[in-house]
Amino acid sequence: MFSPILSLLLFSILPISSSTQSTINVWPIPTTFSWPHPHSILISPLLTISSPKQTYLTSAVNRYRRQILTEKHQPRAPHVINPTFTPSLGTLTLTVYDLQAPLHHGVNESYTLSIPAGGRTAAVAKITAETVWGAMRGLETFSQLVWGDPPRIAAGVFVSDAPVFAHRGVLLDTSRNFYEVEDILRLIGAMSWNKMNVFHWHITDSQSFPIVLPSEPDLAKKGSYGAEMEYSVEDVKRVVEFGLEHGVRVMPEIDMPAHTGSWAEAYPEIVSCAHMFWWPAGYAWADRLAAEPGTGQLNPLKPKTYEVIKNVIKDVATMFPEPFYHAGNDEVTPGCWKADPSIQTFLANNGTLSQLLEIFVNSTLPYIVSLNRTVVYWEDVFLDADVNVRASLLPPENIILQTWNNGPSNTKKIVSSGYRAIVSSYDFYYLDCGHGEWLGNNTLYEQPPGTDQGDGGSWCGPFKTWQLIYNYDITYGLSEEEAKLVLGGEVALWSEQADPTVLDSRIWPRASAMAEALWSGNRDETGKKRYPEATDRLNEWRHRMVSRGVRAEPIQPLWCEKNPGMCNAQPI
Amino acid sequence: MFSPILSLLLFSILPISSSTQSTINVWPIPTTFSWPHPHSILISPLLTISSPKQTYLTSAVNRYRRQILTEKHQPRAPHVINPTFTPSLGTLTLTVYDLQAPLHHGVNESYTLSIPAGGRTAAVAKITAETVWGAMRGLETFSQLVWGDPPRIAAGVFVSDAPVFAHRGVLLDTSRNFYEVEDILRLIGAMSWNKMNVFHWHITDSQSFPIVLPSEPDLAKKGSYGAEMEYSVEDVKRVVEFGLEHGVRVMPEIDMPAHTGSWAEAYPEIVSCAHMFWWPAGYAWADRLAAEPGTGQLNPLKPKTYEVIKNVIKDVATMFPEPFYHAGNDEVTPGCWKADPSIQTFLANNGTLSQLLEIFVNSTLPYIVSLNRTVVYWEDVFLDADVNVRASLLPPENIILQTWNNGPSNTKKIVSSGYRAIVSSYDFYYLDCGHGEWLGNNTLYEQPPGTDQGDGGSWCGPFKTWQLIYNYDITYGLSEEEAKLVLGGEVALWSEQADPTVLDSRIWPRASAMAEALWSGNRDETGKKRYPEATDRLNEWRHRMVSRGVRAEPIQPLWCEKNPGMCNAQPI
Repeated sequence: MFSPILSLLLFSILPISSSTQSTINVWPIPTTFSWPHPHSILISPLLTISSPKQTYLTSAVNRYRRQILTEKHQPRAPHVINPTFTPSLGTLTLTVYDLQAPLHHGVNESYTLSIPAGGRTAAVAKITAETVWGAMRGLETFSQLVWGDPPRIAAGVFVSDAPVFAHRGVLLDTSRNFYEVEDILRLIGAMSWNKMNVFHWHITDSQSFPIVLPSEPDLAKKGSYGAEMEYSVEDVKRVVEFGLEHGVRVMPEIDMPAHTGSWAEAYPEIVSCAHMFWWPAGYAWADRLAAEPGTGQLNPLKPKTYEVIKNVIKDVATMFPEPFYHAGNDEVTPGCWKADPSIQTFLANNGTLSQLLEIFVNSTLPYIVSLNRTVVYWEDVFLDADVNVRASLLPPENIILQTWNNGPSNTKKIVSSGYRAIVSSYDFYYLDCGHGEWLGNNTLYEQPPGTDQGDGGSWCGPFKTWQLIYNYDITYGLSEEEAKLVLGGEVALWSEQADPTVLDSRIWPRASAMAEALWSGNRDETGKKRYPEATDRLNEWRHRMVSRGVRAEPIQPLWCEKNPGMCNAQPI
Repeated sequence: MFSPILSLLLFSILPISSSTQSTINVWPIPTTFSWPHPHSILISPLLTISSPKQTYLTSAVNRYRRQILTEKHQPRAPHVINPTFTPSLGTLTLTVYDLQAPLHHGVNESYTLSIPAGGRTAAVAKITAETVWGAMRGLETFSQLVWGDPPRIAAGVFVSDAPVFAHRGVLLDTSRNFYEVEDILRLIGAMSWNKMNVFHWHITDSQSFPIVLPSEPDLAKKGSYGAEMEYSVEDVKRVVEFGLEHGVRVMPEIDMPAHTGSWAEAYPEIVSCAHMFWWPAGYAWADRLAAEPGTGQLNPLKPKTYEVIKNVIKDVATMFPEPFYHAGNDEVTPGCWKADPSIQTFLANNGTLSQLLEIFVNSTLPYIVSLNRTVVYWEDVFLDADVNVRASLLPPENIILQTWNNGPSNTKKIVSSGYRAIVSSYDFYYLDCGHGEWLGNNTLYEQPPGTDQGDGGSWCGPFKTWQLIYNYDITYGLSEEEAKLVLGGEVALWSEQADPTVLDSRIWPRASAMAEALWSGNRDETGKKRYPEATDRLNEWRHRMVSRGVRAEPIQPLWCEKNPGMCNAQPI
């Protein structure tokens, strides 16, 4: 009945002889675990999960119970006769010490999980956690230890787990192309499987303004792609609640003052350079009107600008309880403001573009802070070479800077200046890169065959592979003190070339790669990069995600899963 | 009621002032068409399509009639009040001169289509074609001229159309990862919308042998990924029939003598070097055992090899009526045969690897030819530097060479040697490229940040954009006579990093780009590359394909579709 060898085949990645402990197929891998005698026990169809009462935890418990009993995961690694061991596991007990702790940055997500060894009567599995959010992480780990039909679970396992980085996010841009609420919920659900905890919702941009704000309904009414491509107050509520049920914070971003062309549909008077061709003929690149097609920047000199903005901020802060408020502030393009007659007067009177941005920040930042929000800005507000704001106007206690340029170098600049950092380096974490040019009529494509293809027209190519993402050390080159200011990272899906047709495959399993690197690190206990080991485990995990309903892209032929180690670049 | 301006907004890509004729939103664009006075007429819900009786044509007529009446395509370009014009169109008449012409290479696919101008009572639309296959192309064009709810159609249109290249294909590899029959049918359906006519089914490879052959059932039984990942005789029949109903030939490929590791599960005695690590430690790259993980090459010296092969060929020729038979012959890897003791003896007696391949070709090619098949080989059999076959053993009347290396240069080598060529240059037509490395433990990913990412680990990166594919001239550098030997091209989806989760988005709309380039060319009547114009039309076409149930990836923000010309790299 009980066959440790067979279960080893199923669950072990390490060669059997190299260790007395087997690796468990959990993604992200827990920081510490032990499974000294690999075997499994059946799970009772009457499984009880006893848990303290808390709305979101109860929702999670019900969800996981259903999943555990119905998932019937079939591992794709070498087929084995599954071991069975009775009596079956009938109870999982959750202990949570603090039921009140809200889902905020830095909340304790640690948990322990113990699954009894087989053969003990009336054995009980246990999860203990400081908070309900940690308990949810424990439930996820529990669910990934289950497989088969009837379901069984790895037995004699002890896990003690907590994240290395507190901020582990996915950014989705819903402005360039629209996503249905169902798409967003599916994303958040899959994030929770990967123990990711921040959905950074880049809601608006120059292309469309899809969120309906009660105080400023015209912004969506005129600026969205159409009534069928809007997020209502009810939709947002659904997303936020779904996030809470899954332990995923929903951090809104209303980008400004740049990336606001869509605002001009409702308020043309507050937007500079709207509706213009983004890079007019004869203009130098530095003088273009926007970072990409879709021009428009809020005009900091118009009082009306702030009337609208305050309504927007107030509504957004009401709709999103999350204490981090992302206020954008990237890619202020000089040419746009310079094209605006009212700003030309300001500049003619010895005003500078940086002063203009400072006016804007001084007129908006205090208001966001007054709503008890920590403001996240893109690094540009501080690091842009042409248009930036002095550090004295950007108090580090209120501000976090999100980096996307220059890899580790900009992270260093941010934290060495005393700011907390969120890392989204486009060299590693931009999931849209590598799919080529999306602009029309680029003469690149009229060259004869044999011309160097470069990155195929993609400004941030090549494609960021899961391996590259996995291996990126976001505190590379920092002192220990500096590293403490790195809150975590976010992979980003900008949507110029993405929409619901490719959402799942662009994000998964590559976001999983970051999820593990930020949860339990990308090195094994000897300090060695463990991506070779991770390959087989990620294959299996990707397969489970697909079964759970997310169309994650394959990373290898199935043959590689069935023949572990044989698809390596070099023999182990 | 009738508003030419509004319909122009809907259907015109060219600026209104630049032409008295509007472009029609058809993909691929017909070789010639005229639409001097853009307007539309309603289509009667009782639309009759009268057509001669022929099994496959009848099937197509029924399918198109249903689609025309139910598609309700909503153009995404600037919204307009659709013009209506009555009386509605009640009849489409098909005239076909030759009902017998089989769906073979070079069959006449030309057609003419006329749609009467609005306002004429009892007007009738007409399609005339030499063959049923041409009639199907005409029906597709007709269907793309329909939009709205209730449906209406561009009126006063005349189209005369025929392909530039006779062979317009998609290769799908179903060995590295498996695809369901439904996936394949969806692909063939979408091919027919794009007037593509060859589904090149790369059925088997070293990783799996998914096709059940009645004479050699063990090949699949032991060599497939499992019983749930096999194609039965019935499945194949369904695919072939579906192809005929859509005017798409199904060309099978059973790759050999390399790429046959999966055969070793049933017949270990006929496969050299099976089950070995593909690139053993200490081996030079040139001495590796296979082009990629999954070793195994048929042993040309074993009589049993040919017993099995003849059964395979006979069964495949029976199951696939298509006169082109693809027999592989790519990437014969010296190290594999050299690792086989029986071959070592042959080599020790002054035999060469090329002689070995010649033995193989001489023992298989005549048999395939005897079954009235034209044999398609990958170019390697003739052009490989190390292992190749003399031209005298490869009669051009029986053989077509498919090129994948060195872009136009190898095409030139093939046709200048008198062979017909099918072009699948990986520099332009490989749809899997650019997604990075799939091998495990590549040290590339253990480098510190800042290391040049190259092509991200992809051997054939960067990603092949639709623009690159669109602009490739497959007869580049050839004389007029040589160009006649280029039958056409195929985009290829190799499946190391693809499976059903990404099938649609990897293939579409990029295959559409090749489809148009090979159907009506990639230049306008002035000889200028027309990809700028094609961008907006492809956007709209991609949108229609998504509505028809294929998850084609987006190429631009929706904003670009709504603001034609504004997303260009440079102003027009």
